[in-house]
Amino acid sequence: MAEKPLGERFALLTDLYQLTMAACYFDQDMHDEATFSLFIRKYPDHRGYFVAAGLEEALNYLATLRFTEEDLAYLESTGLFQTRFLDFLKTVRFTGEVFALPEGGIFFKDEPLLEVTAPIIEAQLVETFIINAMSLQTLIATKASRSVHAAQGRPIVDFSLRRTQGTDAGLKVARASYLVGFLGTSNVLAGKLYDIPIFGTMAHSYITSFKDEIEAFRVFAKNFPNITTLLIDTYDNYVGARKAAEVAREMESRGQRLRAVRLDSGDIAEISKKVRQILAEEGVGYAKILASGGFDEYKIARVLAAGGEVDQLAVGTKMGVSADAPYFDIAYKMVKYAGRPVMKLSTGKRTLVDQKQVFRFYDDQGNMARDVIALRQEELPGGQPLLEKVMDRGRVTKQLPDLKQSRDYFASQFTSLPQAYKDIENPAAYPVSLSAGLEKLQSRIEQEILERELGES
Amino acid sequence: MAEKPLGERFALLTDLYQLTMAACYFDQDMHDEATFSLFIRKYPDHRGYFVAAGLEEALNYLATLRFTEEDLAYLESTGLFQTRFLDFLKTVRFTGEVFALPEGGIFFKDEPLLEVTAPIIEAQLVETFIINAMSLQTLIATKASRSVHAAQGRPIVDFSLRRTQGTDAGLKVARASYLVGFLGTSNVLAGKLYDIPIFGTMAHSYITSFKDEIEAFRVFAKNFPNITTLLIDTYDNYVGARKAAEVAREMESRGQRLRAVRLDSGDIAEISKKVRQILAEEGVGYAKILASGGFDEYKIARVLAAGGEVDQLAVGTKMGVSADAPYFDIAYKMVKYAGRPVMKLSTGKRTLVDQKQVFRFYDDQGNMARDVIALRQEELPGGQPLLEKVMDRGRVTKQLPDLKQSRDYFASQFTSLPQAYKDIENPAAYPVSLSAGLEKLQSRIEQEILERELGES
Repeated sequence: MAEKPLGERFALLTDLYQLTMAACYFDQDMHDEATFSLFIRKYPDHRGYFVAAGLEEALNYLATLRFTEEDLAYLESTGLFQTRFLDFLKTVRFTGEVFALPEGGIFFKDEPLLEVTAPIIEAQLVETFIINAMSLQTLIATKASRSVHAAQGRPIVDFSLRRTQGTDAGLKVARASYLVGFLGTSNVLAGKLYDIPIFGTMAHSYITSFKDEIEAFRVFAKNFPNITTLLIDTYDNYVGARKAAEVAREMESRGQRLRAVRLDSGDIAEISKKVRQILAEEGVGYAKILASGGFDEYKIARVLAAGGEVDQLAVGTKMGVSADAPYFDIAYKMVKYAGRPVMKLSTGKRTLVDQKQVFRFYDDQGNMARDVIALRQEELPGGQPLLEKVMDRGRVTKQLPDLKQSRDYFASQFTSLPQAYKDIENPAAYPVSLSAGLEKLQSRIEQEILERELGES
Repeated sequence: MAEKPLGERFALLTDLYQLTMAACYFDQDMHDEATFSLFIRKYPDHRGYFVAAGLEEALNYLATLRFTEEDLAYLESTGLFQTRFLDFLKTVRFTGEVFALPEGGIFFKDEPLLEVTAPIIEAQLVETFIINAMSLQTLIATKASRSVHAAQGRPIVDFSLRRTQGTDAGLKVARASYLVGFLGTSNVLAGKLYDIPIFGTMAHSYITSFKDEIEAFRVFAKNFPNITTLLIDTYDNYVGARKAAEVAREMESRGQRLRAVRLDSGDIAEISKKVRQILAEEGVGYAKILASGGFDEYKIARVLAAGGEVDQLAVGTKMGVSADAPYFDIAYKMVKYAGRPVMKLSTGKRTLVDQKQVFRFYDDQGNMARDVIALRQEELPGGQPLLEKVMDRGRVTKQLPDLKQSRDYFASQFTSLPQAYKDIENPAAYPVSLSAGLEKLQSRIEQEILERELGES
C-alpha cells in the first residue's frame, strides 16, 4: 500500500496563520509573485560552517501539494473560512520556482540556502513545511560532520534512533549523518529506505539474559561470525575483555575472526588503553575497539586527545538531537513582492532584500577563500554561483543526485574547507560580504521604509 | 486512503542489534518471559517532576506489530539472517503485558513509567520504538508544563511547528503541550488529528506584502473580525500600536472588537508597558497583548517578574525542542528474565531489578508527599499504586482516556503537587525511596552477580 504523496499528507501541516493570511490575499486579489529566502539568523556557538540538507523532501512536498476533500472539510468545520476561499484552496498547487544549494553544500553566516518565488499565496502557505523539512537535516548534517571531523578518519556509526525527537527525526538523522560521512546507522528502516549500510552490536540486556557473560558472547559469535562485536562492560570491562579474547580464540579455531569489542561506559580513554593491552596479551590484538556512550564531537576530541585507543565510534543521542544546539534560528522571509524589494525592521531581525545569489571564491590551491552574497542577476567574475535552479513552474527541473552522490559532493567540498573553519571549539569566522549591488539596494529600501512607515526622513 | 497500522509501518524502525539478538535467542530456543523497565537514568537540570506521555502510540505499535513481506525481503537482502529465523519473524506478534503510568501522570526520579513483560524476543524487539515513542512526548509534556506554570494562568499557545525536529515531532509537540494545559496550537494538522483548538495571528511577510502596515491590519480585520490579533513590531511597536488602535476603532464602528496586538521582538517587558499605555490612551484598553519570540518558562518568568503587561503567550522553538534539555537519558532495561531478577553493573548505570510498582503517599491536605518504588507484588498500605495494567496478551485491556480526559487528569495531579517541586529554577527534590522488599532483593542480586561474574565474594 503506497503512502499518499508528501504534499497531500502534509498540506495541513502548517500554521493556521498561513491559511488566514492566504484568505486575506485572496480577498484582495493579491496574486503577484513573492520571493522568500531561507537563512539562519543567528549562529549557534562553535559552528564554523553549515551543511545544507533536506532539499529532496522540500521539493517532493512542493511538487505534490494539494488540499484533500478531508482537509477542506476540516477547515470548513472551524467556521473561520468562507466557501469561496475553500473552493479556491481546492485548486491550489505549487507553481513556483526554487533556487537552492545542492544537498550537502557547505554554507556560512547570512547566506540563503533556498529561495522560493511563486504567487504570494503559494509561497506563503509552504513556509512552515519548508522550514521544518530543511532545518532538521541541515542541523543534523552540520552537527554530524563535526563528529566525522573530530574522529580523524575513524569510522563512525549512528546509534541515535531511540532518542531522536520522534520517528521522522530518527530517519532523517540516519540520512543526514550518512550524507556527511558516517559509515552507516543502526536504524534498519533507514537502511531499507535510503540504502544506508546498517550496523549493530548487542545490548546489556542480551548479556544479562544469559547465565554467564561468556555464554552470551559464544552464542553471538556462533550466529554472526562475520559481524561479531562483543559488548564487554556489562559487569567489568577487563574481565569482559579476557572473556572476549577467549571467544576470539575459539573463533580462530573455526577460521573466523572477532571483529571488535565495545566499551560503553566509564573513562573510555583509560579503559581503552588497558583493554588494548589485554587484547594484545591474549594474542587477539587484531580485534578492534569500538567506543560508545554519550559521544559527540567534543567527547571524541577529548578521548582521542587523552590517547584513547579507539578504532571505531558509535555516536547517538547528542548528535541525534544536536544537543548543544538543538535548533537553528532559521527563517523564511519575504524579500520581494510584486517586483518590489521588501524587508522588516524588527529589532535584531533585519533581512537581506531581493532575490540573491551566493558567489564563492577559491584560492590558488583550490581552497574556499571567501563568499559574496549578491543580487541574483549580478555577475561576479571568478566567483562560483552556489544556488541552482531546481524547480520551475512547480516541477523539479534538475535531476537530483542520489544520497551517495550527495555524500561524495559533501566530502569534496569539505576537503576544500580550510582547517581553521573546522575547529570544534573555536572555529575562525569565514569571510562573507555583501556585493556592492546588494549593499546599495539594502540601504535604499531601508531608507524608503523608514520614511513611509515611521515618518522619518 | 488509510495508512498502514503503526506496527506495520515501523516494524523495521528499530536498531539492527534488536534483530541480531533476537536471532541468537531464537537459535538458543530462549522464549522465556522477560520484563523490561522504562525509566530516566539522569535528571536534567531544573526539572522537579516529569509528565508521562506517549502511551497510546506505544500501545498502538505493540498491538499491530508485524513484519511485512517487504520488510522480510529487505532483511534477507542483508545476508545476515538465516531463512529459519526470517520465517519465524514473519509470525512474530507482540503477545505480552504492559503496566504503565496513565497519560499525563506525574512521576519522579528513578520511577519506571512503563514495564513490558513478554517472551524475550518480543520484549527486546520493541525497545527502540517504545523509547522513541515515550521519550519525546514525556520530554515535551514536562517542558511545556513548566511554561504553563510560569505563565500563572495566562493562556499559552504552541507556535513551534516550523522548528520542531521533523514532522512527527511537530504533531507530538502540539499534542503533548495541549495535554499539560496549553490552550491550543498553530498546527492545523494537529488540530484536525487530535481535536485541539487552533490559533494564529499574522506574519511579518504579510505586513510587508502591503504598501502600508495599516492597510494590512484593515484587510485582516475585515476578513477575520472575530480572531483579529495584529502583529505590531514589523516597523516600530509604538507606531504599530497606534495604527492597531485606529483599526480597532474602525472595528468598533462595525460592532466588532480587536482581540489583541502581538509583540514579537525587543524588550517585551518594557515595550508591553508602553503599548498598554498607548492602547489605553487610544481608548481601546480592552485589546489584549500577546507576546511571542523566544519564549520558554525562563523568559516567561523573567518578563512577568519585570512587570511585563502580557495577557497571552505564544511559545515556540525552545519548548518545541525542549532546548535546555533536548533529550532524556531514558533507558528500557531488562530487570527480570525467566523468573530471575537481573541487572547490569556498568559504571553509573545500575538498574532496579524485577517487576515494580510505584506507590504514592499524600498528606492530609491531599498533596503529594512521597513515593516508594516497590516490588510489584508488595502491598504498601496507604499508598496509591500508580502503574496500571493497560495491555495483556498483546491487547489493550483498559479503555484509554481521550486527550481531553488526560488533560484533565494531568491538571488534577498538578494541583496536588506542592509548589516547591514546581519551581522553575531550583525545584526541591521530591522524596522517592525504595521499599524494604526491593532494597533487599537489589542487594542480594548485586552480590550474586559479583560472585558469579567477577569471582568476588
